[in-house]
Amino acid sequence: MSDMRLVVVGAAGRMGQTLIRTIHSIPGVTVAGAIERSGSPNLGKDAGELAGIGTLGVPITDDPLPVFAKADGVLDFSVPAATVEFSGYAAQSRIVHVIGTTGCSPEDDASIAAAARHAPIVKSGNMSLGVNLLAVLVEQAARALDADDFDIEILEMHHRHKVDAPSGTALLLGEAAAKGRSIALAQHSVRVRDGHTGARRTGDIGFATLRGGSVIGDHSVLLAGTGERITLSHNAEDRTIFARGAVKAALWARTRKPGLYSMRDVLGLS
Amino acid sequence: MSDMRLVVVGAAGRMGQTLIRTIHSIPGVTVAGAIERSGSPNLGKDAGELAGIGTLGVPITDDPLPVFAKADGVLDFSVPAATVEFSGYAAQSRIVHVIGTTGCSPEDDASIAAAARHAPIVKSGNMSLGVNLLAVLVEQAARALDADDFDIEILEMHHRHKVDAPSGTALLLGEAAAKGRSIALAQHSVRVRDGHTGARRTGDIGFATLRGGSVIGDHSVLLAGTGERITLSHNAEDRTIFARGAVKAALWARTRKPGLYSMRDVLGLS
Amino acid sequence: MSDMRLVVVGAAGRMGQTLIRTIHSIPGVTVAGAIERSGSPNLGKDAGELAGIGTLGVPITDDPLPVFAKADGVLDFSVPAATVEFSGYAAQSRIVHVIGTTGCSPEDDASIAAAARHAPIVKSGNMSLGVNLLAVLVEQAARALDADDFDIEILEMHHRHKVDAPSGTALLLGEAAAKGRSIALAQHSVRVRDGHTGARRTGDIGFATLRGGSVIGDHSVLLAGTGERITLSHNAEDRTIFARGAVKAALWARTRKPGLYSMRDVLGLS
Amino acid sequence: MSDMRLVVVGAAGRMGQTLIRTIHSIPGVTVAGAIERSGSPNLGKDAGELAGIGTLGVPITDDPLPVFAKADGVLDFSVPAATVEFSGYAAQSRIVHVIGTTGCSPEDDASIAAAARHAPIVKSGNMSLGVNLLAVLVEQAARALDADDFDIEILEMHHRHKVDAPSGTALLLGEAAAKGRSIALAQHSVRVRDGHTGARRTGDIGFATLRGGSVIGDHSVLLAGTGERITLSHNAEDRTIFARGAVKAALWARTRKPGLYSMRDVLGLS
Repeated sequence: MSDMRLVVVGAAGRMGQTLIRTIHSIPGVTVAGAIERSGSPNLGKDAGELAGIGTLGVPITDDPLPVFAKADGVLDFSVPAATVEFSGYAAQSRIVHVIGTTGCSPEDDASIAAAARHAPIVKSGNMSLGVNLLAVLVEQAARALDADDFDIEILEMHHRHKVDAPSGTALLLGEAAAKGRSIALAQHSVRVRDGHTGARRTGDIGFATLRGGSVIGDHSVLLAGTGERITLSHNAEDRTIFARGAVKAALWARTRKPGLYSMRDVLGLS
Repeated sequence: MSDMRLVVVGAAGRMGQTLIRTIHSIPGVTVAGAIERSGSPNLGKDAGELAGIGTLGVPITDDPLPVFAKADGVLDFSVPAATVEFSGYAAQSRIVHVIGTTGCSPEDDASIAAAARHAPIVKSGNMSLGVNLLAVLVEQAARALDADDFDIEILEMHHRHKVDAPSGTALLLGEAAAKGRSIALAQHSVRVRDGHTGARRTGDIGFATLRGGSVIGDHSVLLAGTGERITLSHNAEDRTIFARGAVKAALWARTRKPGLYSMRDVLGLS
Repeated sequence: MSDMRLVVVGAAGRMGQTLIRTIHSIPGVTVAGAIERSGSPNLGKDAGELAGIGTLGVPITDDPLPVFAKADGVLDFSVPAATVEFSGYAAQSRIVHVIGTTGCSPEDDASIAAAARHAPIVKSGNMSLGVNLLAVLVEQAARALDADDFDIEILEMHHRHKVDAPSGTALLLGEAAAKGRSIALAQHSVRVRDGHTGARRTGDIGFATLRGGSVIGDHSVLLAGTGERITLSHNAEDRTIFARGAVKAALWARTRKPGLYSMRDVLGLS
Repeated sequence: MSDMRLVVVGAAGRMGQTLIRTIHSIPGVTVAGAIERSGSPNLGKDAGELAGIGTLGVPITDDPLPVFAKADGVLDFSVPAATVEFSGYAAQSRIVHVIGTTGCSPEDDASIAAAARHAPIVKSGNMSLGVNLLAVLVEQAARALDADDFDIEILEMHHRHKVDAPSGTALLLGEAAAKGRSIALAQHSVRVRDGHTGARRTGDIGFATLRGGSVIGDHSVLLAGTGERITLSHNAEDRTIFARGAVKAALWARTRKPGLYSMRDVLGLS
């Protein structure tokens, strides 16, 4: 099959530039277009030069439709309103739309679902292959091991600049564990331990947070029983994993029928 | 439901004593019988006293049938010939037979399968819940993540007295990974790295071995991609986990139809 | 040199029995006496039988002085009042006194110091070689790496029955880090992170707590900088490490002059 | 104190560019000069532009002496012949010379030592603060814990492209452990374990190697005893740690007397 021609929207932003560099580094895909909002000071510039990898011959434009028409897929980590609009154009062009945009409203999601009747869409709040796989494994492990026997704990570490805790990914893993246990996380979550805590309650899911240095993001889910422990971990070494996951999703979706897919589908695990 | 009444065969051996102590410590199960071979010097002794937990009122006997007749299940980490014989008695008594015996020949397995037409049998070479779960997760992860993207490595650590490498469990995990990848482990296994190794070949499964102290058994399977890593680990803290897994299997099988089951069935993962 | 003859005080208690089993398992030391309080129901019993290792020919007695007189050292994990008394007898007999007793008052400590003019005493709140070594390494690392560059975090995991957090050992390691930094732990300790925490403050020492299963005690101190991380960890596999450390301390002290020593001295690190 | 003015030699190479970016990112230091060999196609170009951080107003030149004369220090990861020459110029200018160059002959080292009579020189084969600290801690731990009680194992993981094993840093840590034990590493090193190995020999230092993904470099030294384990680890997240360590060394040396120093001196650990 010929290289998959991919369009990057928000091409001048930090994530857009990462997407362009990532596509450029992976065999089988090529940068076919670069979109920015009207009025961007970067319109007309070469997308490759802006991303620091030399001239690609792909000028940044604010007119998506003609670009989508000649492409096989679009990678989109933008904002809900733009994503809804792009999903319409991608549907019109019958091309793959990979959506990493977060914060979509139910109305936005309905529009995206409508577009998915005409083109394959992969949408996920976290495009990392590893994190999505880990969530599936955690859910299964939590289902297989009884709460009476195994205690679930979630540990995360991020860099010193992170301002909240636990991380979104830690909570996502907690939700996966709770789903495996058929319980509601909110009622079983323990997020603080200090002083006299009493013994651990059966069925609780504990969170612990480390902060320091430049750690991109480490997550571990522990299932601790009597005499044995299972630990399922993910370490992110750099932020390109989201871009790589998006490219992977696009390649996977290329040969799929129209429909709304998740990263679990891409991993073959749903 | 009333307590499940369990018989231990090989009751005077190291594993037999561990089984008796473990049954005694778990709610919902009780030691209902203790079998040893004819001629054992321990015949007639109390199984609890021999195991160091005080009198249980369960004398060790060499006559299994009357004991099986009054029990709900039998835990068996013995030798193939004995196991085949016990499986016949258990089938006759319509009680659960949990088999941790290793080294069965195809003929032995055929006899056991025949017995399984009359009673539920759970048979596994490793009765630890955690190791069996880990193997399932490893197989899935290896299937979900392409060999072009993620490299698989298996690390194990055991105490200073262990005389071979890699451990049986490390090889079992390697087989699970190979199965997920639909490859033969033997053709892709790398067990030595020293000096000039050259770059890692795509699709290889690497093994690394640590030895020291009194470590019961730690195993990790790493799936290392560009920018991210998944690590799936099991730590054994003591040797009772095999006994605990056997009790778990018995309780699970109590309400099952006759048939031959594995620990994956007990975990609900097959 | 002949075997070191060791007396165990509190010989019928849980720790006393562990000490007797441990002495029995280590070459170069032998159980020479076993002391219990007057009125103990175990007086007269054989210390080895009580500890489950068979007859040692050492009856438990409540009269320490004649026993001390024929011994080379005493291992003491008892209570302050008893320890003060034993230190007097050990001083009189000019034998080593290893003290793992906690909760001594300044007056108790003064009495012990007085006794140390006549016999070598090793006293520590934690007799594990590993934990004591880790504390020394943590202090050095905290001193060597600037607070502006490296953030210190302390992680601990214990079994589900533990009722307080962080563990005493985690706090001991925090104190070691604070000492290395020449700061007061109380002013720089962060023990809770939940919700909007803001960015990490330079110089803080963070604690995180995991609870689950049967974990005896795992501790890690992380020093996380820009682009690199140091992790210093201790894993306790069983509770005999305190008994083993006490025996090690006794053997070390056997050839020392009278004086009050710590486990740092035993490790050769002071 | 005013910003320390630093010169980078080999400024157009990969490490040179990393040094320029790193200096630019750290408060208290500034890029004061950029040297390349005569004939380099990059002479005359701006060092900042070449490193991708915008114009610094520092043209690359092949004439070190006038540049050194106006600077406070020079960072040098070049080749032995060039380093010897630079050490002469730095001595003449009485400025700090930080040397990460490897492969120096005894004659080269003698020349550098001579230069160190006139200016402070910091020389190390590995400029990472963390690795140097780890080596010191490993040596101490190996000295404190008897070989009869604790087994030493060294584990390392690097990316899939690495062509040799164990890594140089793993061997450096092995040497540190051997030094702590007062043994020769070569006589006690175990680098392969496969098949029937026999029990571990007391005093051996074992190596294990993992390869996969894009791992920059993880190293762990384990000291495994009966019932407890110490693990001392270093994780490198990116390759700038060598540049950061060099800047740290320069800042440390700025106020030192002439002399030849190591990273242990910089860490305050010698």
